[in-house]
Amino acid sequence: MAEHTIRFEPDGREVRVAYGRTLLEAARQAGIDLETVCGGLGTCGKCTVELKDSRERVLACQYPVHRDLVVVIPEAARPIRQRILEEGVAVSHSAADPAVRKIFVQLPEPCLTDLASDWRRLREHLARAALGDKTESADRAPLEIPDQASLSLLRQLPGLLRAGQFSGTAVCHGSSVVAWEPGDTRQSLHGVAVDLGTTTMVLHLVDLRSGQVIQTSSRANPQIEFGDDVISRIQYASVHEGGLQRLQQKVIAALNELIRSVTAAAGLETRFVYEMTVAGNATMQHILLRVPVAHLAQAPYVSVFQDGQDVTAGELDLDIHPQGNVHVLPSIAAHVGGDTVAVALATDLGQGDAPRLALDLGTNGEILLGHRRRLLACSTAAGPAFEGARIAHGMRAATGAIEQVRLNEDVELTVIDEVAPAGICGSGLIDAVAELLRVGILSDTGRLLTGGDLPVSLPENLRRRLVTRDDQPAFLLVDADRTAHGRPIELTQRDIRELQLAKAAVAAGIDLLCRELGIAESEVQGMYLAGAFGNYVRPAGARRIGLIPPLPLDRIRAVGNAAGAGAVAILISRAARRRAADLGRAIEYVELAGRAAFQERFSERMLFPAAAAMDEFTAAD
Amino acid sequence: MAEHTIRFEPDGREVRVAYGRTLLEAARQAGIDLETVCGGLGTCGKCTVELKDSRERVLACQYPVHRDLVVVIPEAARPIRQRILEEGVAVSHSAADPAVRKIFVQLPEPCLTDLASDWRRLREHLARAALGDKTESADRAPLEIPDQASLSLLRQLPGLLRAGQFSGTAVCHGSSVVAWEPGDTRQSLHGVAVDLGTTTMVLHLVDLRSGQVIQTSSRANPQIEFGDDVISRIQYASVHEGGLQRLQQKVIAALNELIRSVTAAAGLETRFVYEMTVAGNATMQHILLRVPVAHLAQAPYVSVFQDGQDVTAGELDLDIHPQGNVHVLPSIAAHVGGDTVAVALATDLGQGDAPRLALDLGTNGEILLGHRRRLLACSTAAGPAFEGARIAHGMRAATGAIEQVRLNEDVELTVIDEVAPAGICGSGLIDAVAELLRVGILSDTGRLLTGGDLPVSLPENLRRRLVTRDDQPAFLLVDADRTAHGRPIELTQRDIRELQLAKAAVAAGIDLLCRELGIAESEVQGMYLAGAFGNYVRPAGARRIGLIPPLPLDRIRAVGNAAGAGAVAILISRAARRRAADLGRAIEYVELAGRAAFQERFSERMLFPAAAAMDEFTAAD
Repeated sequence: MAEHTIRFEPDGREVRVAYGRTLLEAARQAGIDLETVCGGLGTCGKCTVELKDSRERVLACQYPVHRDLVVVIPEAARPIRQRILEEGVAVSHSAADPAVRKIFVQLPEPCLTDLASDWRRLREHLARAALGDKTESADRAPLEIPDQASLSLLRQLPGLLRAGQFSGTAVCHGSSVVAWEPGDTRQSLHGVAVDLGTTTMVLHLVDLRSGQVIQTSSRANPQIEFGDDVISRIQYASVHEGGLQRLQQKVIAALNELIRSVTAAAGLETRFVYEMTVAGNATMQHILLRVPVAHLAQAPYVSVFQDGQDVTAGELDLDIHPQGNVHVLPSIAAHVGGDTVAVALATDLGQGDAPRLALDLGTNGEILLGHRRRLLACSTAAGPAFEGARIAHGMRAATGAIEQVRLNEDVELTVIDEVAPAGICGSGLIDAVAELLRVGILSDTGRLLTGGDLPVSLPENLRRRLVTRDDQPAFLLVDADRTAHGRPIELTQRDIRELQLAKAAVAAGIDLLCRELGIAESEVQGMYLAGAFGNYVRPAGARRIGLIPPLPLDRIRAVGNAAGAGAVAILISRAARRRAADLGRAIEYVELAGRAAFQERFSERMLFPAAAAMDEFTAAD
Repeated sequence: MAEHTIRFEPDGREVRVAYGRTLLEAARQAGIDLETVCGGLGTCGKCTVELKDSRERVLACQYPVHRDLVVVIPEAARPIRQRILEEGVAVSHSAADPAVRKIFVQLPEPCLTDLASDWRRLREHLARAALGDKTESADRAPLEIPDQASLSLLRQLPGLLRAGQFSGTAVCHGSSVVAWEPGDTRQSLHGVAVDLGTTTMVLHLVDLRSGQVIQTSSRANPQIEFGDDVISRIQYASVHEGGLQRLQQKVIAALNELIRSVTAAAGLETRFVYEMTVAGNATMQHILLRVPVAHLAQAPYVSVFQDGQDVTAGELDLDIHPQGNVHVLPSIAAHVGGDTVAVALATDLGQGDAPRLALDLGTNGEILLGHRRRLLACSTAAGPAFEGARIAHGMRAATGAIEQVRLNEDVELTVIDEVAPAGICGSGLIDAVAELLRVGILSDTGRLLTGGDLPVSLPENLRRRLVTRDDQPAFLLVDADRTAHGRPIELTQRDIRELQLAKAAVAAGIDLLCRELGIAESEVQGMYLAGAFGNYVRPAGARRIGLIPPLPLDRIRAVGNAAGAGAVAILISRAARRRAADLGRAIEYVELAGRAAFQERFSERMLFPAAAAMDEFTAAD
């Protein structure tokens, strides 16, 4: 078959590809990542590149190679390095009580009067040591007696026992002996906790003796090349031969990179890491274990597993101790995953009598509401607007994104990393719309007002920003000469409609959960905003547009990377792990798609709250 | 490197081998098995072959290839096809109660009001079905609730569930769900039980619903090419890079052949076999699991594991259901293995108040003695005499072997398969010596009498058989013109000394166990002769030479392949498996090497019992 030479600029890489392959495939072959929000379906336009000779702009994912080409890749077509939230709310835990522990024992050497086998010798002394463990106390569950050996351990045991003259340290996990290390290695006992997001992955290296996080590292989820959202990836996994395996390999390679990076920084060998906990949405958790995902995206949307899973690290090729345990958190439903359970755990939901609410917002919004008698969860398809997609000048929360907007005499902006702005991210969008509502440029129905409809008191500098773009009204946020790319940044009427759809989905979800629990929204005593979005959004703005209930600001709290914090909690505390398992069983999933009431609430929530409804807060906050 | 052509005759196979390789290696390369009792150390002489051109006779294992050769392989250099004992004593078991069971369930399909994950859906319905199982009865342990799924099952579950419209059969093992089969497959539930001997392997295919053995197949253990006894194989595994793995692969390939042979004969797919039980000596069990064996042959002789092991079939590449369980029986010590536990189980030792004794005799003799309060075991190095080795005309119990000898007016023989005799096997040797003692040709000290020392009443036909060979007295069993090879078959003074050493080791072991238990040998109420040797030896002969205690014949019973019977028992009965685990813990190992008394008993037992001591039985039997 004919091959052609494709050269990529400015990278200077050249590859030979077969006739008919796409430029996206050629780029992958050259080791170049292109942004593909839609998963290569040709709908998002993010992978637009330029053919150098004809200056033609084409979609890399759609354009078939049929001759030699030089292709210029603009910055916009490359995946952005996103700001990743690593910090999460600290979980209260008295003292570290991890599932993994080390027991040092000095075994008597075999002799004619003591002919016990290597394993029985070790097992019996471990049982004695475990029973005599003085660190056990009333507030902890009794420690299990380690009495199980893997075949792998048996194979290594005779050599290792003799290498250390029968003195050494057993690494135990529940009733299993994971490893035997000659000598006293009790000072080195580590684990890693992972928040495995669709977009980003955060990994914490934890000293299991102290329970302290000692290193943290994060990166984009490399599966992004197969699509930005879980649906594109499920499609990829289901349609392509070997697709699921490819997705799994990508995420495992990335996890191994993170593990090696944190252990290197801590001056530690990876074999001294004995457990990994993983909180991800159901799709990420299924892919990690290479369990089929097709039914997660087909009605009625069921997962293959929802209970917590324990798998040997070696089985997944994860670069911790090969006999180490990988614990994948329990999940609730196809669209309410282990990350949501981790958020519930980190925010102590399901405890106490006062109803509390948690919102983890991304492409989907997962909502938790309840108290110790009843805890509800739902997932609502907010769409990508909060992540800057489908917004004319939208972008992710990365360098150059407008993240806060104030309207006073003129527009006042906060830009990530304080550079010339390149677009607007989700939190900036909410802020801008909240301010447009406040100053009266935007009506409750979401219409950008013009001319005589505008308040007479509106400052001239704001008034002049009302422009027309493609026969639609728009609000000019930044003039062309002050942006990074030399084009104006505007908020269009269509952008506002997108935001209305997104916020209506979330608000309707919260509304329905409150009704299901039998409370008014105002009765919510604590509201947690989890995840990156929750951390950067101004709560007052989110409240002003009606994304979250009208609560006093002192009841609203950003809890950062609560999923990661939950993953750390179950790594260092057996009690937290049991609590996560309990939450997995206790949380009631409320399916919105099955409820007629949802459509009704959704339509209502398209409207923004009337200005009058917000008046009470201006004084209070 | 230079290569030479080696042609083997009469096989007609030709191979090219590198300069310096041995003829044994060349034969292996040509796919020809040669007998190597010593494991290729050049000491047993069994692999003697002839160079066609020079008519030189050389040891194949020692002769280096340095030119092109035509090599003639005599029949004697080929491994003999041994008579293998497949039948064992039947174990009493009321009804089959295997560890593996099948549960048929019809699951409701997921819908908007029932969104349980695939695995939780299955697990919950299995638990309900297991709790409602009507076959449970008072005499059985309660069935475990199956609530564990392997990653492998999770990966297949969504496809399999939908392939059978959510109706199917779960294969359960304890708390694990091994497999899910669409439709109702309860009629097919099978297991295999293996007696894994150093020399031979016997495999039974069992219908687990009825508990009946439906097919049996056996073959030589192909590890024989690496040495006839466990010590040669341990040496091979310890000295050669990858040796242990090679030994494991050999035995697994042979097991897979046996499995395919019995399943084909039963018209069954191998995936409908869900469990394998294995009774072997400790070395065979270690090799099967590829666990290092070096310390089994180094003082103070300890094994790596002695408790029963459960391993997934796929992990060992065994050709039953890949998620099926392989249960390796518990063992007692480095030289008292799972096969001995199986013998104890099959003979119900450790039950009742009367002391009973079991002897499993091969190169080593494993001895069990006790009652319900105390059960002892030891292993005694009988040496290879009972298997025909180190005996001038010795051979294994195969076609052409003299297996019984009577001395009346002349010698009367029984030859296996009623052909011209080629040698004498262990049972024939014992018979011959017992008869020589009875007619007064042999003294109590083991000396072949001559001339005036012989009884005057000795028939002339016997008297003429006392010949001299290499300056030593010998007894002519068969004249040269009546043997298969045209050479006379004689019993030499040296052969009798070898037998004395062998029988003294066993008798001293029995003696010591009786003393340890505090009984006289005559108090033994039941004596079981296990294994091939036990089945073919005449108990009166064994008693006459003092190999076994002087007991009335009605207390002595050949129990055949008791190890195989024990392996079947634990396959079809959970109670038997618990009993085997109990035996593994309860049986006390008595180390003979550590006891000064053993040497003393051993010297005493070199003597044959005086004729007078045997008189009481002639009337009674």
